[in-house]
Amino acid sequence: MFSVMRSVVELFGYEEYDAPIIEPLEIYLAKSGEEIVNEQTYTFEDRGRRKVALRPEMTPSVSRMVAARRQELSYPLRWYSIPNLWRYERPQNGRLREHWQLNVDIFGVEDLSAEIEIIQIANQIMVALGAKSDMYKIKINSRLMMEMVLGDYVGIAPEKHKAINHLIDRKHKMESSEFDEAAKEVLGENPESSSSLTKLNEVLTKGSLSDLPERAKLLPNFLRLEKLINALKQAGIENVEFDPTVVRGLDYYTDIVFEIYDNHPDNNRSMFGGGRYDGLVGLFGVEPVPTVGFGMGDVTMKNFLELHNLVPTLKPETEIYVIMIEDVSEHAHAVVSGLRDNGVKVAVDWMSRKTDKAIKTAVKKQVPFVLFIGHREVNDRLYTLKELASGQEQKLTIDQIVELIKKSRN
Amino acid sequence: MFSVMRSVVELFGYEEYDAPIIEPLEIYLAKSGEEIVNEQTYTFEDRGRRKVALRPEMTPSVSRMVAARRQELSYPLRWYSIPNLWRYERPQNGRLREHWQLNVDIFGVEDLSAEIEIIQIANQIMVALGAKSDMYKIKINSRLMMEMVLGDYVGIAPEKHKAINHLIDRKHKMESSEFDEAAKEVLGENPESSSSLTKLNEVLTKGSLSDLPERAKLLPNFLRLEKLINALKQAGIENVEFDPTVVRGLDYYTDIVFEIYDNHPDNNRSMFGGGRYDGLVGLFGVEPVPTVGFGMGDVTMKNFLELHNLVPTLKPETEIYVIMIEDVSEHAHAVVSGLRDNGVKVAVDWMSRKTDKAIKTAVKKQVPFVLFIGHREVNDRLYTLKELASGQEQKLTIDQIVELIKKSRN
Repeated sequence: MFSVMRSVVELFGYEEYDAPIIEPLEIYLAKSGEEIVNEQTYTFEDRGRRKVALRPEMTPSVSRMVAARRQELSYPLRWYSIPNLWRYERPQNGRLREHWQLNVDIFGVEDLSAEIEIIQIANQIMVALGAKSDMYKIKINSRLMMEMVLGDYVGIAPEKHKAINHLIDRKHKMESSEFDEAAKEVLGENPESSSSLTKLNEVLTKGSLSDLPERAKLLPNFLRLEKLINALKQAGIENVEFDPTVVRGLDYYTDIVFEIYDNHPDNNRSMFGGGRYDGLVGLFGVEPVPTVGFGMGDVTMKNFLELHNLVPTLKPETEIYVIMIEDVSEHAHAVVSGLRDNGVKVAVDWMSRKTDKAIKTAVKKQVPFVLFIGHREVNDRLYTLKELASGQEQKLTIDQIVELIKKSRN
Repeated sequence: MFSVMRSVVELFGYEEYDAPIIEPLEIYLAKSGEEIVNEQTYTFEDRGRRKVALRPEMTPSVSRMVAARRQELSYPLRWYSIPNLWRYERPQNGRLREHWQLNVDIFGVEDLSAEIEIIQIANQIMVALGAKSDMYKIKINSRLMMEMVLGDYVGIAPEKHKAINHLIDRKHKMESSEFDEAAKEVLGENPESSSSLTKLNEVLTKGSLSDLPERAKLLPNFLRLEKLINALKQAGIENVEFDPTVVRGLDYYTDIVFEIYDNHPDNNRSMFGGGRYDGLVGLFGVEPVPTVGFGMGDVTMKNFLELHNLVPTLKPETEIYVIMIEDVSEHAHAVVSGLRDNGVKVAVDWMSRKTDKAIKTAVKKQVPFVLFIGHREVNDRLYTLKELASGQEQKLTIDQIVELIKKSRN
């Protein structure tokens, strides 16, 4: 899975970077949103009594790194990483969970080209993993447009937008009555609240940009969003759609956000996503750098591949398991070296035990071939190669074995 | 460097494993030796008030993992990993240093074949990294044999062996008078101390097995060591030698230990090593499992490669940098996709800036080719490809570009 990710992002010119796994807690407090920092982050004091955290996400780290070298880096800067991240489970569980996440970011591009490229990469990885376009959807929204719609059309005061956004982000996990209750609480007691709630629900059920209120269509961010969706369709990505409920849980996104949804009936939910966050690098005391990126976790992707029967069958790396039917260790070394020098991956059973036990081990390890070596084999320089799947045995020279293994790779 | 390591260990049939980076402190206290745990390990309390550590080494983790699945695993078990490890610098410095280390272990083999295989792998990696046999030495010793020599011949009481071993391990970093002082302190005030010190220094300067005292030569571990060195020489590894001062700092080794020494006059020291540790798995409450392994750190290896001029020149992954000389973004997407679909790694300059600035970026990023696209190029379907090193420019179709890039890879 990671090798597929790597090969796709490198086709797009991205370079790998690495970052520390322990960071000062402050870098997450600024913009990640409260939930992720307070409830899900593993924090502790280091020996110098500083509050530090095992990184729960990569975006603040990479932003800090870009900020530190802002002048010397050349843009567009394309960086990716597959870091391990940690999530601390809620107290009743208390486990520390390590997981991996591909992070892909482009720095320095204000233009919509950055969003197009980033979403193309996300889509290309899905395709490379074997997903068909009817298995998933790419849902896109503009936070800036939504902010204007929430304020101007729905009538929600700006200071309540953050709370409403967090609520919208969780909408899919709630009953509609539950959502309404929570929204009423945020909107507060005032004469317009009930009409706002009606309008909010109306806006959030719009399935296409053309259904939005007419005045929304005049907003520059509406046009930007429309242009993005059209450009992606033109680039052959059919399963792109506008979704007003996509806002992303993290506070640092500034405009376009997107999520990749699983269409499978048993897993109808967001798998991963990203968006534009032009402000984060600037938080580290330098001029801001426009940025678009996404993160793609290993756990949700594994789940997707399993549900859609896309998990590739893993072949073991080892190709030949060598078993000595008599004690010929000293000669076996030369045979084995001869194979390895030709790139054949060989494991030797050094256990001085009965042959059938050794064969069982080879079967358990799923090594495709077994090679038997005894005194006669050493004398004749002809070794017995057995293909475990077919049971077929042949007496072969080292050169012939190498040739056969190389053929069997295709 | 890591990809070379990976390819070698997989030739020997090793499979990759992964382990948690935070472990309960106890697993290091048992057998790692005091220095590594007390002074160099980064420890803290987790939320459940347990003492935990950022792993300073991998061996205790892998031993615990094998112990937990002792029954279901099949032997010989060949495992490798390239974990990140942490070392906490002494208080005056106070930094936390992350580094990487290849760890290779074979479990379940009592026979000397395990040592032969493990040392062959260590040597094979050196060879694959470009090292010649005169650049480094493989120094081997047997802890059990040394223990008997220290007790029986030198006359040191068994309870002092651990302290003497730690001292011998640091001998290379000390003046000989300093070593003598420290040794006297360990030996204590008794009539035999001075004769013991003389004998100790005599034994520690022996350069070959045949120079050891006659009664040492009757020990079974002497014969084992001799057999190992002969087997390695027979396998074509010429730069193997016995060294009585090789004892390894970690307490868990039980018999054969080895170290790879840099022969470079500016860096005449041990780079990495390993040995047999048959007792560690058994510490986790199961029957012991014979084990031989080694660890190879990135920092010392990088140092070695630099000193010996073996660092490979790193080519950037990206092959073409696309620059639009006019605003043709919409068409550029198709051109770029055409290249990527054929496996060419392409980065696009989405900066809408002057061409010479974009070229500077390509040069800085060391991308070998620049592709210019403007209106005429889009119309003619002929794009200008410039090789930056030679300055040579050609007008080519996408197919021709793909062909040229593929040729340029060799």
